[in-house]
Amino acid sequence: MATFFDSSEYLGRLERAAELAHSLGIEAVLVTPGPDLRYLTGYHAHALERLTCLVIPAEGDVTLVVPELEVGTANASPVADLPISIATWQETDDPYALTASLLARPGEGTRIAVEDRMWAVKALELRKAMPGAEQVGAGVVLGELRMRKSQAEIEQLQRAGAAIDRVHAAVPGWLRAGRTENEVAQDIADAILNEHETADFVIVASGPNGASPHHMASDRVIQPGDAVVVDIGGTTAAGYCSDSTRTYSMGQPSARFARDYEVLQRAQALACRAVAPGMSCEEIDSVARNALADAGLVDYFIHRTGHGIGLETHEEPYIVQGNDRRLEPGMAFSVEPGFYRAGDAGARIEDIVVCGDDGAIMCNSRPHELLVVG
Amino acid sequence: MATFFDSSEYLGRLERAAELAHSLGIEAVLVTPGPDLRYLTGYHAHALERLTCLVIPAEGDVTLVVPELEVGTANASPVADLPISIATWQETDDPYALTASLLARPGEGTRIAVEDRMWAVKALELRKAMPGAEQVGAGVVLGELRMRKSQAEIEQLQRAGAAIDRVHAAVPGWLRAGRTENEVAQDIADAILNEHETADFVIVASGPNGASPHHMASDRVIQPGDAVVVDIGGTTAAGYCSDSTRTYSMGQPSARFARDYEVLQRAQALACRAVAPGMSCEEIDSVARNALADAGLVDYFIHRTGHGIGLETHEEPYIVQGNDRRLEPGMAFSVEPGFYRAGDAGARIEDIVVCGDDGAIMCNSRPHELLVVG
Repeated sequence: MATFFDSSEYLGRLERAAELAHSLGIEAVLVTPGPDLRYLTGYHAHALERLTCLVIPAEGDVTLVVPELEVGTANASPVADLPISIATWQETDDPYALTASLLARPGEGTRIAVEDRMWAVKALELRKAMPGAEQVGAGVVLGELRMRKSQAEIEQLQRAGAAIDRVHAAVPGWLRAGRTENEVAQDIADAILNEHETADFVIVASGPNGASPHHMASDRVIQPGDAVVVDIGGTTAAGYCSDSTRTYSMGQPSARFARDYEVLQRAQALACRAVAPGMSCEEIDSVARNALADAGLVDYFIHRTGHGIGLETHEEPYIVQGNDRRLEPGMAFSVEPGFYRAGDAGARIEDIVVCGDDGAIMCNSRPHELLVVG
Repeated sequence: MATFFDSSEYLGRLERAAELAHSLGIEAVLVTPGPDLRYLTGYHAHALERLTCLVIPAEGDVTLVVPELEVGTANASPVADLPISIATWQETDDPYALTASLLARPGEGTRIAVEDRMWAVKALELRKAMPGAEQVGAGVVLGELRMRKSQAEIEQLQRAGAAIDRVHAAVPGWLRAGRTENEVAQDIADAILNEHETADFVIVASGPNGASPHHMASDRVIQPGDAVVVDIGGTTAAGYCSDSTRTYSMGQPSARFARDYEVLQRAQALACRAVAPGMSCEEIDSVARNALADAGLVDYFIHRTGHGIGLETHEEPYIVQGNDRRLEPGMAFSVEPGFYRAGDAGARIEDIVVCGDDGAIMCNSRPHELLVVG
């Protein structure tokens, strides 16, 4: 298994997780396979029914509970180079009791953090094995850590951004009136796979389909004059996600669409420019929203301005009204306003940005203008 | 979106879920996107941070809570043809409070079933929105239903089995001494994709790697004389999983391996033959284990005999010691004993079987003999 970070990076994350848990009065953080486990240890395991669980006590040694069958896989990961004990269990053992036995105080009055995306049935089994303990989502610890990217992580996000930019650069060669959205999407998916380890999503939303933000791709034949929203992303071998949207026009757009698009482009640019330490997430959202409101377009902007990104396509921080969290250096997220005129057309522009000391670090660099194709 | 089952099939599942919940004293079953939601409604949505939740009260109408942004996608699924109300929420609404508001008695003294694989953070939010209610895993309802396949589902499992059989039939053309496991695995993955919607896993474990049941594939060059365990599976467009293992020999095997393999083949055949209504899961496991024990091989059989399969590769019932559940017609699972001599070689034979009225219905039909290649 390739490793992308030094052991010291994982060690620092484990130490900060324990410290933060301690400061929050959390006895231990329990992490099953998924992005949190990969973040903390580099162990990229799939969530299956047999319990694998990293136990990070607020004070004391870190242990990985792992089925005997999967010890070899765990030891082939960066876990082997970290100060993590391995506790194995056999097919007929109770791994939840084993996990509870690793805690100094598993019972009444203690707070136990379970990974946000742990299967509910596993969280319920852990609850049974630790009667009286209060469970909280581990996002209060791990979300806080993951939200603030290290320099090495920022570089990984920039690589992911460059990868998806190369795909967008090739899109005009595949977008033609007369082809279906699905045909174009297949070409794009192949290209994403060439540039990433997985192709995660391909939205090719032409004409009226562009007015549905979550439309994927269909058998609709792309028509001359259509606007086409292309929102695409993948995950690199290092585990970092790309996500970028550009809007293409099949020939010259209508005067109204062209004018609306200019407003959108300004709104997106202003929101990116507003990114700086101390600005709140909802303020960034407002910048985009207000720029659209000034031109009478805000009622057509029906979603939040963005979402955090890293080892998952969607993670904290969310750039949405009601989120008063203040940006800090290292926070990475999408800035993706759009407008959606039902039955007619839609447009969206999306870049990934990282909050730097002095403003936004852009991870995407494709032109933002409406791209006239054909 | 293609539909694979009649509305009446989904309707029957929803009704049985409500009835079973009622009989267990469960107020409502809450289901987020995943195999359970697909099973109940045909809606194949990805689990994301915005809450989508099917609410099945023990008594009363079924409602799908869905983000406004995703209403179009939900309505393009079989949900549109079912008696399911849609309750939408906007970006700044509280979808957990909305979900609680749909229950007649969301609080103290009631039992609420949450989908087994719901994200823990969502289950915790639902708990907060329904203070005093006791959460249980919905497996007690939905696992019971899903475990017993309908005739239409059995046909889907047979199609999946035939698909993976066609891949195994082509494996001898790719397996050659001098190629790496990864090269062979890539050819197999491409073939699985041709026959399925997704390729889920490809194990090509040669020589000593075959002694690790969860080895995937590596850069190891396959050697003359190696035994190669090939364990592969995918998911069809209808959502049903295939999973089949055959063991190949690169040229003539050693006398010991050939003798051990014959024991394994007999153990696997006996376990398949033992499948019948009324037999317990652990009895099936014992049949395989005892056949290996008679030849001194049982210490090399280090995992359970099988796992249920359907919309997930691994689901109930598990064919393992300690599981005294009795087989019923429609239960589908793998029968996959193996032996693993550390540092030397391993072998496994795996078929998917469905418990029929009179014995096992086999979903795979490739020969079980050791397949000598090259």
